[in-house]
Amino acid sequence: MSTIDTSIDPKPTGSAAILAAEHSAPHPLILYGGWFCPFVQRTWIVLTEKCIPYQYIEINPYKKAPEFIALNPRGLVPTLAVPSSQTSGSSGEGQTQALYESNIVCEYLDEEYRGEVKFGPSLLPGTSYERARCKLWMDHISSKIVPSFYKLLQHTPEKAYLLDEAREQLHAGIKTLTREMKEEESGPWFLGDTFTMVDVCLAPWAKRLWLIDHYKPGGCGFPEKGEAGEEEEVWRRWRLWLDAILHRESVLKTSSSDEMYIDVYRRYAEDTTSSLVGQATRKGERLP
Amino acid sequence: MSTIDTSIDPKPTGSAAILAAEHSAPHPLILYGGWFCPFVQRTWIVLTEKCIPYQYIEINPYKKAPEFIALNPRGLVPTLAVPSSQTSGSSGEGQTQALYESNIVCEYLDEEYRGEVKFGPSLLPGTSYERARCKLWMDHISSKIVPSFYKLLQHTPEKAYLLDEAREQLHAGIKTLTREMKEEESGPWFLGDTFTMVDVCLAPWAKRLWLIDHYKPGGCGFPEKGEAGEEEEVWRRWRLWLDAILHRESVLKTSSSDEMYIDVYRRYAEDTTSSLVGQATRKGERLP
Repeated sequence: MSTIDTSIDPKPTGSAAILAAEHSAPHPLILYGGWFCPFVQRTWIVLTEKCIPYQYIEINPYKKAPEFIALNPRGLVPTLAVPSSQTSGSSGEGQTQALYESNIVCEYLDEEYRGEVKFGPSLLPGTSYERARCKLWMDHISSKIVPSFYKLLQHTPEKAYLLDEAREQLHAGIKTLTREMKEEESGPWFLGDTFTMVDVCLAPWAKRLWLIDHYKPGGCGFPEKGEAGEEEEVWRRWRLWLDAILHRESVLKTSSSDEMYIDVYRRYAEDTTSSLVGQATRKGERLP
Repeated sequence: MSTIDTSIDPKPTGSAAILAAEHSAPHPLILYGGWFCPFVQRTWIVLTEKCIPYQYIEINPYKKAPEFIALNPRGLVPTLAVPSSQTSGSSGEGQTQALYESNIVCEYLDEEYRGEVKFGPSLLPGTSYERARCKLWMDHISSKIVPSFYKLLQHTPEKAYLLDEAREQLHAGIKTLTREMKEEESGPWFLGDTFTMVDVCLAPWAKRLWLIDHYKPGGCGFPEKGEAGEEEEVWRRWRLWLDAILHRESVLKTSSSDEMYIDVYRRYAEDTTSSLVGQATRKGERLP
């Protein structure tokens, strides 16, 4: 989740602009998003993967829509407006309610839209144990890899830690995850041939790794083929996953034009962003 | 989760000692725990609520059992040894595997042990929306209330923040949660008459609030009946919940003797604990 820097161009571009236009008609299920926010993209990927009907509303940070603030006074994206038909349950009449926290929203969508062929298979495995295992690795992504992405991107020469330290931390988080992936013969995803929520969970940051190459000396510093010595295998597996995720249709469709990201992420690279995630990273605190 | 101070008496006492003895026989489902750890207690409460058969093994911090370290090299509690019959799934032969992270373990147990009368109703509601809503409030407990509990308990005169500030933060987190509880006519729990994972999630810290009264000047400082002015209603609802949770059988059964907690939590109150949670609190970092 993030609040949005007030100087950001308030609309999606490129493929995401097309997708947003296709989902601009009123619908009771609404995703309130910000085009550049990776937490929003998680939710947007799930909606796209499962062919769920919804309306996309971009939240203009200069002028937050009153119905959005009424629904979620915290004003954070992603916020999902859940139709009254889905909130009623046993307690009678429902009303439109808000859900937030990207992983909770993603899991909600996966649970609510299931059992019909048109929504495809669940994005979590069929057994309780495998589901729990996926959640453990989603937790690793959110608590280890994502914070190290920001720590590296927001590094400046004034920091108390070295650029190389931040890079090493990102590598460590990625290698730990990659060693848990199924062997490459079974397919590129975390669970081999099955695309799951673990892949969704990391996809938006994977799609933004090139910004670290763009802004930081030495960039991500992932070893090239043949250059990783004893770690050759884990890095080969990582490249297989990364290449697959960068070509996944749902990831491409929910992404704006590259040059627009360059603009937004300059504030992160210079460590002047006012986003909640950026501020927490600056202070060394837990991400919101 | 927590590592354990090496000077702690390594066995449960009181009611928890009885429960541990009742579950000392070998069983393929094993909870590796530490008697004083509130994260462990979450899992222990779920096992007790659902009458799940299991073996309890107390992890002696002086001498961690080799089979425990083999299962979970990180050596953290709670760790659940999941029998091979539950890890097999579609990929053929299973083997004993570890799950950790208390909320993930609790949800796993609730999902795996269902559909049989003897395990009782699920600890999460029946609709996707209500389940997501419970997870949002579990997240609030873990990310807001629990850290403020430690911040208050570990306050010392040297800190950069005031005791009153820490107390106010704990109150704020509790009031936000309490305002989301069902009206008191429907029952004491978060969802009224239905005991759920939201109640489980906070129970171990609710059970330890008296330690703040014991160690800190002014204690928890919750307003007494008739003393909360405009906030009378929210505090009345909180007292109703707190009283109910302190009398819940599963909470009592999984608790050791009061005097033993006094001993363990002195290290927190003096801010000299070496536990991971205690260290993270000291540094102002995200809890592990």
